[in-house]
Amino acid sequence: MKVIKFGGSSLASSTQLQKVLSIVEADDQRKYVIVSAPGKRFDGDTKVTDLLIQYARQTIHHQDTTAVMSTIIDRYAEIGHGFEVPEAQLTPIFDTIKNLPKQTYADNTYLMATFKAHGERLNAQLVAAVFAKSGLNARYLDPKEAGMVVTDVPDDAQIIDSSYDNIAKWANSDQILVIPGFFAYNRNGQICTFSRGGSDITGAIIARGVNAERYENFTDVDAIYAVNPSLVAQPAAIQEMTFREMRELSYAGFSVFHDEALIPAIQGNITVNVKNTNHPEAPGTLIKSTKDNSTDYPVTGIASSSSFCSLYIRKYLLNKEVGFGRKILTILEDHHVSYEHMPSGIDDLTIIFDEHQLTPELESTLKAEIAEAVQPDEIYFTHDYSILMIVGESMRNRVGIMSRAATALADHNIKLIMVNQGASEISIMFGVHDRDADQAVIALYNEFFK
Amino acid sequence: MKVIKFGGSSLASSTQLQKVLSIVEADDQRKYVIVSAPGKRFDGDTKVTDLLIQYARQTIHHQDTTAVMSTIIDRYAEIGHGFEVPEAQLTPIFDTIKNLPKQTYADNTYLMATFKAHGERLNAQLVAAVFAKSGLNARYLDPKEAGMVVTDVPDDAQIIDSSYDNIAKWANSDQILVIPGFFAYNRNGQICTFSRGGSDITGAIIARGVNAERYENFTDVDAIYAVNPSLVAQPAAIQEMTFREMRELSYAGFSVFHDEALIPAIQGNITVNVKNTNHPEAPGTLIKSTKDNSTDYPVTGIASSSSFCSLYIRKYLLNKEVGFGRKILTILEDHHVSYEHMPSGIDDLTIIFDEHQLTPELESTLKAEIAEAVQPDEIYFTHDYSILMIVGESMRNRVGIMSRAATALADHNIKLIMVNQGASEISIMFGVHDRDADQAVIALYNEFFK
Repeated sequence: MKVIKFGGSSLASSTQLQKVLSIVEADDQRKYVIVSAPGKRFDGDTKVTDLLIQYARQTIHHQDTTAVMSTIIDRYAEIGHGFEVPEAQLTPIFDTIKNLPKQTYADNTYLMATFKAHGERLNAQLVAAVFAKSGLNARYLDPKEAGMVVTDVPDDAQIIDSSYDNIAKWANSDQILVIPGFFAYNRNGQICTFSRGGSDITGAIIARGVNAERYENFTDVDAIYAVNPSLVAQPAAIQEMTFREMRELSYAGFSVFHDEALIPAIQGNITVNVKNTNHPEAPGTLIKSTKDNSTDYPVTGIASSSSFCSLYIRKYLLNKEVGFGRKILTILEDHHVSYEHMPSGIDDLTIIFDEHQLTPELESTLKAEIAEAVQPDEIYFTHDYSILMIVGESMRNRVGIMSRAATALADHNIKLIMVNQGASEISIMFGVHDRDADQAVIALYNEFFK
Repeated sequence: MKVIKFGGSSLASSTQLQKVLSIVEADDQRKYVIVSAPGKRFDGDTKVTDLLIQYARQTIHHQDTTAVMSTIIDRYAEIGHGFEVPEAQLTPIFDTIKNLPKQTYADNTYLMATFKAHGERLNAQLVAAVFAKSGLNARYLDPKEAGMVVTDVPDDAQIIDSSYDNIAKWANSDQILVIPGFFAYNRNGQICTFSRGGSDITGAIIARGVNAERYENFTDVDAIYAVNPSLVAQPAAIQEMTFREMRELSYAGFSVFHDEALIPAIQGNITVNVKNTNHPEAPGTLIKSTKDNSTDYPVTGIASSSSFCSLYIRKYLLNKEVGFGRKILTILEDHHVSYEHMPSGIDDLTIIFDEHQLTPELESTLKAEIAEAVQPDEIYFTHDYSILMIVGESMRNRVGIMSRAATALADHNIKLIMVNQGASEISIMFGVHDRDADQAVIALYNEFFK
């Protein structure tokens, strides 16, 4: 029994959906099909989710929605007509799109959530109709009927644990159940979505709930690669990786699989298989709790992300001061800012943040409040900050990885502004200037994979 | 105008004091002489301070103090008689020792502070008498008369800033002023001591107060060495180092110069010169705000200390949790525990402590409270934890130091359990198992100094 999830690019057109149909038909264990909203058909195309966001905004601002509404309808119509789905089944889908502005919403955040969720909701209904038309014993299963209940946060909901007992009742289904990703309902029956990219999360939740043997996550790459393919030509494919490796690599920019989607998979110990809709015979990448085959490489993957910034704080005798760190962290918490790392020296402290959390105003506020609270001798933000990570279970207990990595970087004259090893046994983190980041990744890849 | 401080071994006997006398006579700028209590004369000897602690304890417990009291008196008598100081000047010193138990004290902590302080106090009186007997224009200056006022913490007092204005009035003294180290008086006139080793602090305070051109700190080594001489034969002597380098090296075990004593020196920008009483012609080590001569070595010194332990905490999705770090640090603060470093991974956090702060009971309490507050998946203490530091202003902006250091350690098969670079630009910190620490220091020394 497998849960199988398709991303937006796999469902962007009737041509793509034909591949999806073949994949589902090829394995009768594939009983739970999670679908995203139709994605881009070509470079420059607009995802249906983005059209729905525009539709919602125009509705909120009482603007003319005719054009965007009909563009959305056309996207579903193209797929439906491609499979000769009867108009009687398409009309309710089109009507739902038309009627979205006429429903009542508790407020605009719920309105936005409902509009966005319909990208997946209507696509799942359409895919179920296509499957049925093609002779499969398939039907649409709404998250409400499935028993998925989430917290009442319209745009960043979390699954409530009792949902898993509800979903378990759907285990061992004879029928193929087509389930929309990305959203579910709060206890009041209102639609709330997961964070963006959340169809992966729905798939993982269903997989855990029905205790699937495998969760197949279909996307548009043959495998997860050991390094960003835009930096290195034909990089090594990762055949197997652990949940922990994936977590650490996601952190520094690996974006193939939605980070939070690992949680239900880990909790249910469900092996995840990332595969390619356009090349389904390729084995893809397995993500699981432990690896069966150790490779020759001590490092599994190398990632980098420039979306970080740092706050440097210097104060004489810092390390003797009880409460210094706590005061700073309390200020961050008051502003709902989480920090990534906090390397500290004797008289210095650097706090590294995900830059997306900060605005120039918030930075000024944080700087002023911290300066007030701890009276540092020096305090400033730095934005020219990339984090590189080398990750691998095989690094555990192996001597000499740091030596090889640091030497590879030094040979390319790359200045290390931060090195953090030790909290995790399976990764080393380097801070470099943004301008050096790509070259650093390439140097590390060549050191560990060539 | 120089402030000159002598440690306990330089004042342990009349033979040693003769050397001190010659040093003071050799330079008429040496007007402020800070003295410690008489130290050990030979391996296995007992420092007068330790005798005084015993004397205080016996007094507190109403035990017979005759033996320890006369041992203390004998130490001063040996020095006094060695210089033929008239009995009329020695008798008041002996009487003060005898009468210590008869004074009244606010409580036993004040009693202890007063007993201990008399090691320095009486030695300064004796040294002043010896100097005078030898024809120097010298006199005893009590910290009270000097205007040194400290916070009301009997065993860990801090200087109050207004003291510096008082001390400034003693600038440009014609007389040689012999001042006891280690203690001063609170606003109520009670004796309070600095933390142990605090004669260095008194010297630095006087040096800042009188705006000395130099603070000469006489001890029993020719220089501060780049590495612990018990690990490496004839290590490189450090000719010049910055305050910051000294701070960072002190942290990881460099114990030649009392860490806190740097503060007044830095504040007053007073150059410190560590010299050898037994070899005063050697130039010693200069510690100053900036270095005049850069050496060929990128690294100034290498230090290690095994007095650390770590608390490892793992929790899934740790780095997304606002408030996690703050909750932990609040618990530490509630127990008055300061932490050294807090390297964090994606789902892991390690907190490194100075082991001396913790007892097994306190560790259990911290672990239980943190477990309660943040519900970690895993939490444990590790005591097999040494910290090594390589420190050097010349490391700033230089590429390749990490490569050389990590390779030297890997070549000796030393496992790195922690690497921390980046908070400070002038140091790299390595965590290794205690059993590897000495070999690691030697490997790093050979890499950077051979």
